Amino acid sequence: MGGTDQARGTRRSPAAANGGGVTRNLNSDTVINLDHGDPTMYESFWRKMGDKCTVVIKGHECLSYFSNIKNPCWFLEPKLEESIKSLHGAVGNAVTDGYSIVVGTGSSQLLQAVLYAVSCDQPNQINVVSPAPYYSSYPEIIDLVRSGLYKWGGDAHGFDKDEPFIELVTSPNNPNGVIRGSVVNRDGGILIHDLAYYWPQYTPITSALDFDIMLFTASKCTGHAGSRIGWALVKDKEVAKKMIKFMEVNTIGVSKESQIRVAKILQVVADGCKRFGSPDGDNFFEFSKSLMSKRWEILRETVKKTRMFTLPKYPLQHCNYTGDVTQAHPAFAWIKCKEGIEDCEKVFRGQNILTRSGRRFGSDPGYVRVSMVSKEEDFDMFIERLSAIQSFNTMAMEMALQTGM
Amino acid sequence: MGGTDQARGTRRSPAAANGGGVTRNLNSDTVINLDHGDPTMYESFWRKMGDKCTVVIKGHECLSYFSNIKNPCWFLEPKLEESIKSLHGAVGNAVTDGYSIVVGTGSSQLLQAVLYAVSCDQPNQINVVSPAPYYSSYPEIIDLVRSGLYKWGGDAHGFDKDEPFIELVTSPNNPNGVIRGSVVNRDGGILIHDLAYYWPQYTPITSALDFDIMLFTASKCTGHAGSRIGWALVKDKEVAKKMIKFMEVNTIGVSKESQIRVAKILQVVADGCKRFGSPDGDNFFEFSKSLMSKRWEILRETVKKTRMFTLPKYPLQHCNYTGDVTQAHPAFAWIKCKEGIEDCEKVFRGQNILTRSGRRFGSDPGYVRVSMVSKEEDFDMFIERLSAIQSFNTMAMEMALQTGM
Repeated sequence: MGGTDQARGTRRSPAAANGGGVTRNLNSDTVINLDHGDPTMYESFWRKMGDKCTVVIKGHECLSYFSNIKNPCWFLEPKLEESIKSLHGAVGNAVTDGYSIVVGTGSSQLLQAVLYAVSCDQPNQINVVSPAPYYSSYPEIIDLVRSGLYKWGGDAHGFDKDEPFIELVTSPNNPNGVIRGSVVNRDGGILIHDLAYYWPQYTPITSALDFDIMLFTASKCTGHAGSRIGWALVKDKEVAKKMIKFMEVNTIGVSKESQIRVAKILQVVADGCKRFGSPDGDNFFEFSKSLMSKRWEILRETVKKTRMFTLPKYPLQHCNYTGDVTQAHPAFAWIKCKEGIEDCEKVFRGQNILTRSGRRFGSDPGYVRVSMVSKEEDFDMFIERLSAIQSFNTMAMEMALQTGM
Repeated sequence: MGGTDQARGTRRSPAAANGGGVTRNLNSDTVINLDHGDPTMYESFWRKMGDKCTVVIKGHECLSYFSNIKNPCWFLEPKLEESIKSLHGAVGNAVTDGYSIVVGTGSSQLLQAVLYAVSCDQPNQINVVSPAPYYSSYPEIIDLVRSGLYKWGGDAHGFDKDEPFIELVTSPNNPNGVIRGSVVNRDGGILIHDLAYYWPQYTPITSALDFDIMLFTASKCTGHAGSRIGWALVKDKEVAKKMIKFMEVNTIGVSKESQIRVAKILQVVADGCKRFGSPDGDNFFEFSKSLMSKRWEILRETVKKTRMFTLPKYPLQHCNYTGDVTQAHPAFAWIKCKEGIEDCEKVFRGQNILTRSGRRFGSDPGYVRVSMVSKEEDFDMFIERLSAIQSFNTMAMEMALQTGM
């Protein structure tokens, strides 16, 4: 599932992107927006790829509503279907054999399509739950038009009703990057696996998943968020058919231009996968994993120095894709303020860094979620200001010690 | 609003597209699908335009979710906004000054965005009505997820409840091409104007409309249905804001690739408008109006000969855009079987022509809706088979006369 979480960019001025010390940043009115997960950090890779990923669409192409009338998902471009299969095959993160592929305008729309598909024939309104901390947009998506088919049922940890339910299993989890399974430990539940971040740059790929309903999105895989392309792998053909029905009524299909472009990009990524460790530098996951890993190293060092925050720890695991033993490098940092600070978001806001409060994820305001996939200049400024918090914090502590407060 | 009405193409074989007489067509198993309004007839114009409308998008472009953070509609590409204004200005069919523009994945999504925007703060669930014959997808769109905010209230002619309501005013109307105003003649109603077909090829442009909420779509304007681009012109900024909120939650914005491409195409159309009557043949509406007019002429002649069907008559009106006095040439033919034939759709199905029954539009099964914007070969086959119905009908009548039945 996506990560803008319906927030807008709020940079007040484009200044202060280069150099400078703590003082400059403390005084700067440049707001760094790390509230949403706009995956612009991948731009340099795609720029380097040059014309390999360029698409050219002529005025008379793509006029019809229909992409493939032989496919129940008649609005799915055949090339996108091919490249999705090809990419999952190359990465080994999900099984596609025997699955129907349904394309959507991002995975948010597909989530709604699934909710419709699994609830439209139920006699009663069905609860949709997810364990806190859960993706902050879930409650909003689910309750937006007050559907009579389903409703947000809150934190899955507290769900104990003896009735059918839908559980959203986000793995790796947004906001905290943790690998998850279902938590409502009983029958009668329909599981929807939101696997937006189950790609090698974010987490070790430990198996090819084969859940009933799996959601993916180009936004987090390759960084092409503006294209709004998501896809669902669906085991049950009847569920897929109902999802297609939802897509027909909601938007009469999905942009052909985006599908054609994402098809090309996913194919380039899939082809690049076969050359892991090649000197060409055209393996997207090698590039992106290395970048994420560096950012996390810098973040961990900086956070450690601040003595004010903590970060989650992730287990070392063997990644079937890279062949390495590695830990996760999530797309978001789930930062916890140390005891005594109640509003972590406020601390960051004081440094003109927009983050998202833990409260929004059904969790504690002592946490914030910070995007790790921003542009380099934003990440650098963030680290600089984080160091400034450290200085300020240390200074305050020293002052407190001196004054005996 | 679009016109696929969630139906799939069902051509059984690609044969029989060329030549042949009545007998061949009567025996042909080639199904002509004119059930939905797939606007493929415009392809030849766009082919002729060559590279003028070609878009080239590089791999590193359009990564971000955001198009313009200074616009409340942050996912609207500035170039699309410009070309929408430019096109309405050139055609003179709608006022844009003082309006907010909200882009959507087709106008179906925008209809849902408007329904949300105008009902989310209402204390009670609100009825949505439209006078029969109404666009067959309205009930489905409105009731899909059984929203608690609004519900389909049926034929507006029969709506007499003393409570707030929403009326969908489709003008020209889908299915019957008639220019419409509100029919629920009392206060307390919110009007949504669906103006998908208010373009010069379909109907005389008699004024620049300035209703509160107006919906348009590229699908029916230029034929680019596969791009899924619609736009709303909205007078009230607060309504626009809530629509944007819906778009954020439903699909986190709209495909950038489609927006960029449609921006280019609308601009080419707008620029071409300024050269009406030029020998270049680059005025899209001149081309498309001429084509529609020819098709309607052929259809009217054929229908007349059949002595079995009738077509609506449209008044002659002055078109401010072309400067001519002209009648409408709607995107759909609303065909009525003569007395005694109850199921008009069945008559056409007997000739392997898929149409949509009047029943689907809240009307009489003695009517069918037939797409007039199909590919030329489909239109030609349709006319040929319609003539065959005539032959068959005349033959049957003659036989009846001879046998005294």
